[in-house]
Amino acid sequence: MINRYARPVMQDLWSDQNRYDRWLDVERYVVEAWETLGKIPHGVAARLSKATVDPKRVDEYEKTFHHDMIAFINAAGETVDPEDAKYIHFGLTSTDVVDTALASLTRDALMIVQEGVSRLSQAVRKLALEHRHTPVMGRTHGIHAEPTSFGLKLALWWLELERDRERIVHATENISVIKISGAVGNYANIPPVIEAQVAEKMGMKPAPLSTQVLQRDRHAEVITALAILAGTLDKMATEIRHMQRTEVGELAEPFGEGQRGSSAMPHKRNPVMAEQVSGLARVLRGYVVPALEDMALWHERDISHSSVERVILPDATTLADYLLDVMSRIMENLTVNTRRMRQNIDMTGGLVFSQKLLLALVEAGMTREEAYKRVQHHAMEASADPAVSFRERVLADSVIASYLTPEHIASLFSVDPYLKEVDAIYERLGLT
Amino acid sequence: MINRYARPVMQDLWSDQNRYDRWLDVERYVVEAWETLGKIPHGVAARLSKATVDPKRVDEYEKTFHHDMIAFINAAGETVDPEDAKYIHFGLTSTDVVDTALASLTRDALMIVQEGVSRLSQAVRKLALEHRHTPVMGRTHGIHAEPTSFGLKLALWWLELERDRERIVHATENISVIKISGAVGNYANIPPVIEAQVAEKMGMKPAPLSTQVLQRDRHAEVITALAILAGTLDKMATEIRHMQRTEVGELAEPFGEGQRGSSAMPHKRNPVMAEQVSGLARVLRGYVVPALEDMALWHERDISHSSVERVILPDATTLADYLLDVMSRIMENLTVNTRRMRQNIDMTGGLVFSQKLLLALVEAGMTREEAYKRVQHHAMEASADPAVSFRERVLADSVIASYLTPEHIASLFSVDPYLKEVDAIYERLGLT
Amino acid sequence: MINRYARPVMQDLWSDQNRYDRWLDVERYVVEAWETLGKIPHGVAARLSKATVDPKRVDEYEKTFHHDMIAFINAAGETVDPEDAKYIHFGLTSTDVVDTALASLTRDALMIVQEGVSRLSQAVRKLALEHRHTPVMGRTHGIHAEPTSFGLKLALWWLELERDRERIVHATENISVIKISGAVGNYANIPPVIEAQVAEKMGMKPAPLSTQVLQRDRHAEVITALAILAGTLDKMATEIRHMQRTEVGELAEPFGEGQRGSSAMPHKRNPVMAEQVSGLARVLRGYVVPALEDMALWHERDISHSSVERVILPDATTLADYLLDVMSRIMENLTVNTRRMRQNIDMTGGLVFSQKLLLALVEAGMTREEAYKRVQHHAMEASADPAVSFRERVLADSVIASYLTPEHIASLFSVDPYLKEVDAIYERLGLT
Amino acid sequence: MINRYARPVMQDLWSDQNRYDRWLDVERYVVEAWETLGKIPHGVAARLSKATVDPKRVDEYEKTFHHDMIAFINAAGETVDPEDAKYIHFGLTSTDVVDTALASLTRDALMIVQEGVSRLSQAVRKLALEHRHTPVMGRTHGIHAEPTSFGLKLALWWLELERDRERIVHATENISVIKISGAVGNYANIPPVIEAQVAEKMGMKPAPLSTQVLQRDRHAEVITALAILAGTLDKMATEIRHMQRTEVGELAEPFGEGQRGSSAMPHKRNPVMAEQVSGLARVLRGYVVPALEDMALWHERDISHSSVERVILPDATTLADYLLDVMSRIMENLTVNTRRMRQNIDMTGGLVFSQKLLLALVEAGMTREEAYKRVQHHAMEASADPAVSFRERVLADSVIASYLTPEHIASLFSVDPYLKEVDAIYERLGLT
Repeated sequence: MINRYARPVMQDLWSDQNRYDRWLDVERYVVEAWETLGKIPHGVAARLSKATVDPKRVDEYEKTFHHDMIAFINAAGETVDPEDAKYIHFGLTSTDVVDTALASLTRDALMIVQEGVSRLSQAVRKLALEHRHTPVMGRTHGIHAEPTSFGLKLALWWLELERDRERIVHATENISVIKISGAVGNYANIPPVIEAQVAEKMGMKPAPLSTQVLQRDRHAEVITALAILAGTLDKMATEIRHMQRTEVGELAEPFGEGQRGSSAMPHKRNPVMAEQVSGLARVLRGYVVPALEDMALWHERDISHSSVERVILPDATTLADYLLDVMSRIMENLTVNTRRMRQNIDMTGGLVFSQKLLLALVEAGMTREEAYKRVQHHAMEASADPAVSFRERVLADSVIASYLTPEHIASLFSVDPYLKEVDAIYERLGLT
Repeated sequence: MINRYARPVMQDLWSDQNRYDRWLDVERYVVEAWETLGKIPHGVAARLSKATVDPKRVDEYEKTFHHDMIAFINAAGETVDPEDAKYIHFGLTSTDVVDTALASLTRDALMIVQEGVSRLSQAVRKLALEHRHTPVMGRTHGIHAEPTSFGLKLALWWLELERDRERIVHATENISVIKISGAVGNYANIPPVIEAQVAEKMGMKPAPLSTQVLQRDRHAEVITALAILAGTLDKMATEIRHMQRTEVGELAEPFGEGQRGSSAMPHKRNPVMAEQVSGLARVLRGYVVPALEDMALWHERDISHSSVERVILPDATTLADYLLDVMSRIMENLTVNTRRMRQNIDMTGGLVFSQKLLLALVEAGMTREEAYKRVQHHAMEASADPAVSFRERVLADSVIASYLTPEHIASLFSVDPYLKEVDAIYERLGLT
Repeated sequence: MINRYARPVMQDLWSDQNRYDRWLDVERYVVEAWETLGKIPHGVAARLSKATVDPKRVDEYEKTFHHDMIAFINAAGETVDPEDAKYIHFGLTSTDVVDTALASLTRDALMIVQEGVSRLSQAVRKLALEHRHTPVMGRTHGIHAEPTSFGLKLALWWLELERDRERIVHATENISVIKISGAVGNYANIPPVIEAQVAEKMGMKPAPLSTQVLQRDRHAEVITALAILAGTLDKMATEIRHMQRTEVGELAEPFGEGQRGSSAMPHKRNPVMAEQVSGLARVLRGYVVPALEDMALWHERDISHSSVERVILPDATTLADYLLDVMSRIMENLTVNTRRMRQNIDMTGGLVFSQKLLLALVEAGMTREEAYKRVQHHAMEASADPAVSFRERVLADSVIASYLTPEHIASLFSVDPYLKEVDAIYERLGLT
Repeated sequence: MINRYARPVMQDLWSDQNRYDRWLDVERYVVEAWETLGKIPHGVAARLSKATVDPKRVDEYEKTFHHDMIAFINAAGETVDPEDAKYIHFGLTSTDVVDTALASLTRDALMIVQEGVSRLSQAVRKLALEHRHTPVMGRTHGIHAEPTSFGLKLALWWLELERDRERIVHATENISVIKISGAVGNYANIPPVIEAQVAEKMGMKPAPLSTQVLQRDRHAEVITALAILAGTLDKMATEIRHMQRTEVGELAEPFGEGQRGSSAMPHKRNPVMAEQVSGLARVLRGYVVPALEDMALWHERDISHSSVERVILPDATTLADYLLDVMSRIMENLTVNTRRMRQNIDMTGGLVFSQKLLLALVEAGMTREEAYKRVQHHAMEASADPAVSFRERVLADSVIASYLTPEHIASLFSVDPYLKEVDAIYERLGLT
């Protein structure tokens, strides 16, 4: 991923250096396990902990061998005693190391993503608690529906982030497996006990069965879980973009001192962070296609998945981390314009209370059919000609008057009833 | 595609009956061509024009043969004299017929889509002409930018629809090819002259080379052209949904007598047609993935593409046709609230004219840097506290006053300069 | 989905009739719950159980109302006493019913898919047990690698299917929620207790929080879980297609009496079922794109997701069910040619044992580097000129002879060592 | 794109330095055009040609302004006389520069891709000419069908690459447009004549109409054209992978001196280049999803597309270039094993000639139905028990003998008839 959208923590994790170091870890753990079995003299693994890998040396060797693992073995081997070096990769096939290390790096990346989810989830939860009783217009189809609590919008996101976390935790478990089972996965040249011992060292589990590689449903699950997370973040970003638009004006993402919204129009304050989230969420979603196509490898493996994963596993986790950071910064510094929220509720002269009126009329004995037509009629008239408000039109309707007193009608044009269950909901969610 | 989203013209085109009729056409044209070569007795083709195919008979035979072409040959053959029937499929391999007919049906479907583009394009063009001088707020990032002409929005769509048409025409040309070249495409059992004669009858061209099938880049191009069209329609729909939202209120899609926006809220008038367009555009876009995956068939063909295309070629063209119809109905009956457009321009107290002020200050000698800071300062203050409008703040600024007279400033707060190039643009586009 | 790829069980589940019946269930349960609260007279719900819905009547009403729920209420209402009918939909917003019913139908569809996974999983497991000790060539990159057990290929699929099941179970849980929370999800016109009671009746849970609709991460998870399943099935199908190819000939999918592989070439026996699985897996994967795009709905909901889901939820579950059935039929009747498997192992004159030789040489004291080069040299020569086999070349090499006796070399050219861990693996997997 | 999959020519093109240099070009051309109009003193543009941009300075300024264009203007401005610097960006909005430069860079990248297509196309054409008369088994469904010419496989790819080129040329034309039309595209602060003059300088055309940005159907067309190209390359790669598999052995991609196929198995020679092409084609295909989603920008633009395009436009063109290079290297050095091709034709004892026999029997008077059954019978028997070959079984069939002489039968078991149209096909294609 380009620097602009990558935080250092992910860049370091997915650096060449770190990948080769992880390979070296695997190689050393394997030697250790062979030592336990008595197949390699005691002490080699300990001495191999001094080995280092210079990515540039690997690049040089790769030009000759056209094979990165063989290049790596040579580059690592030359930093230690040749007598010890010859045990590097003993009994292994390349992907024993490569695929084990890749799973381990992916696991680490997902742990960082999980932390990002926690940070964002907490910021959202905090705001949800603050705005429990803040009335805001509820909108469906982009059209005013009924008032609601701004806190409920936030609580909804908080819950969805928790479901995202759960999906990511599940994907993390499924990728936290290693494979040291040989060229076709039947342990022909290396007994399962080696794999078991290395897995324990790495805090992972042996895959119950593998071919030359781990099966790619595991990696596909990682990418789909991140893509759904991206969908959640896109939803939040889209909401913020809507609520910051000039005509709505209820929210504003942070805007720094000295920041400029437009090189040409000095009055602009644009939701560029949220727009970036929407954009990069698309990129992340796009990785689902190759991740799923990677699953149908040929026989005991073909290597087509490898080039894909060199791109999409670092990029998907790096983008997820970046997006969580951007969205956390938005939520931690969000401007909430409660005055404007209230103005927007009132802007239609009571139209938004039409359902309350409908139900009151039905309860008072009017048929639902007739009540609907009558209320809709006044609503459409008021929309076409706002000079006389919906409320005024209703009060002037003699048929309605024969069902409801003016006082009863007045009580229907209130925000309070729409928030009456909010405390109970918060209670149920444990949001206190 | 489900009935709800399929117009009869497309349902008929993609019906089993029509497919088998098209197969019969191909078979008959081939017999005719063999007659020309003297390989089949004269008159057979003429008599075969009496043959019919009952899809139910095909289904019955398919249960035995597990092969739809062989089932079809039997079902068609039994409706004519056995002496003639035996010439059906003479020298052919199944896909000579199936793939030729599929290309031909797809071509027909695209011609219907092209008509749909024309209808919509005309409706948009008409509106563009009507609203050439209608001022509307131009918005970037959802934030007011500068006023513009509503007609320009429409002209932009009209131009994009013309580019869509061009892409679809190109895709139509690339799919308007047939293949009657035998089991592996080398004309081993059927000379190229047969293919040439059939192509002419069908108003298509022979593919310059084929395997057992036409190459699937042709079909992928069809789907991608339709997916980009769906993107255009989604863009139009998204704009309408934005402009119909309660706080903006500048447009409204048609709303029938007796229509109900919500079963619960009688005041609702929702942009459901546009929302449907946005939704179904997603479905259409989704077909790009399998269309591209279909390209890498094995050797001289594997049949994996066939099940894909039975679904996505009818569905993508059917959805495109349906979406064009919906969008045409919207554009032909769109409610344009020009009064509200004007109110929205004015709602920010002149903020949107900030660039004009900036440029005037620079022209009057202030450095760009200083001008930007000063104008941005008043803009942000006015946004935070609208009680004193941007215009008032600017007029009260003594530094600005040292550069610009009040009359000059007043002239900057006008919509007219933003429309001054509109006539020239229309001229250039041939929009007159 | 077109009839060809839909089994009756799914067609019935997703029929208009069944959907309206489910709506009616929800409406009746709501009335029952209101009766418990004393808001509706006792007995109405019982009498409403006589109500029926004719989809044609709904269609007729929809032409007037342009709103399917209102059409449905009228169509259902006219089949019972008007006094009871007026309580239908009391206090509800349309999507309370629609979205609850959709979740419930999706849950049912996923239960059918789960059964399909079980059937396939069992068939695969059975074969895995049968072929535990059947040697087969292990292949990587399409190139012979080392021999392995055919049973391990099958055990691998069995395990992956179990992971698929687990993902689908998780998705089923996440979609097994209802929402009866009103127009914007704040229970303004209907208390949470109604929702709780209806949920219990339906064997589901209330969503902890909703807007006008359930949040679409739930539906996206359903589609991604099915897409990953499709990837597994595509992998199995791809393997079968490879192993059935003429040059390999190790497997053959079932081929019926009277079936015809080609209308032109009588010798053909094609893996058409497996090819269909590969094709339709692409279609299913394609639904992930719209499912993810559906997540970012506007505010308390926009209806763009609805048209998408009318297509992809039935189609994705229907295809998953169909694909599981096809693959089950393949696995239940698979022809396994163990003789050909053995011939293929032997076809390269011992080349595939090169790693065993390499390791033996290293163990005997040759450096890994030198051993690799020497073994690779003989392998490449034998490939280029198979007249002298790899084994013969190795035996003729005097340097190798100085490390290994002819008897030792002979012992390296054996399949047995490659299967030595198979029993232990089966034990570990509980495959007994 | 990571270094491993990016050639220097594309890395340079898409470098920060090159992007800023292109911005500077645009800015200077605009100043020149203003000079022509007399709005800026003569000579400024000439002096601005000395301006330079250091990407690090831009980064520093961006930390303050959170706006890359404003950062750029400052960084460029400080390298020239302040009196000249103030004219940089005169009358422009940021995207006038950014979007114009992006289109121009994309155009340049596509020109490089076009060269790559030419190189590959030529390599394929050359091989097609060489192998015009090389017999190879034609395969459908992975099963032997009928013999054909290896040259025809290659000619097919050559033709498809030419269609790819045509699509890319069309996309290049559609992206070769600039926009210098102001904040909302109505030329309010900059007359169209500026845009026209800059376009001419850059060898591009003014977009007939724009908003703040060019419309994104243009960019989507670029990505889809590249994705279809990737499909072509994936098809070629898949064919090579199939033909290199051990059991087929007809092709081999280049394998360098000293190269190693496997760290564990010295005999391996894997089609890793082709596998990489298949893998990276998936990545490229994945970019179609975000490219299409980018189209529906809000109003006169939202900036969500920007982050997407910073990733996918460089990455898609860079991958296309890389894939073309890899595939060219494969085709320029492909090992073609014609002996093995011939052996594979013969491996089934004449089965592959079954259609010739069928047609001969029909021509000799047997009904098609009976001929099919009889030929299929022998074919299936010979497949089940290859000890007696298909040809022997046919010769021993007395019913067949009553229709065809042994000499006639012998003539049917020949490769020649399958190649008889090859010269005519080549002629028609202009392949000489």
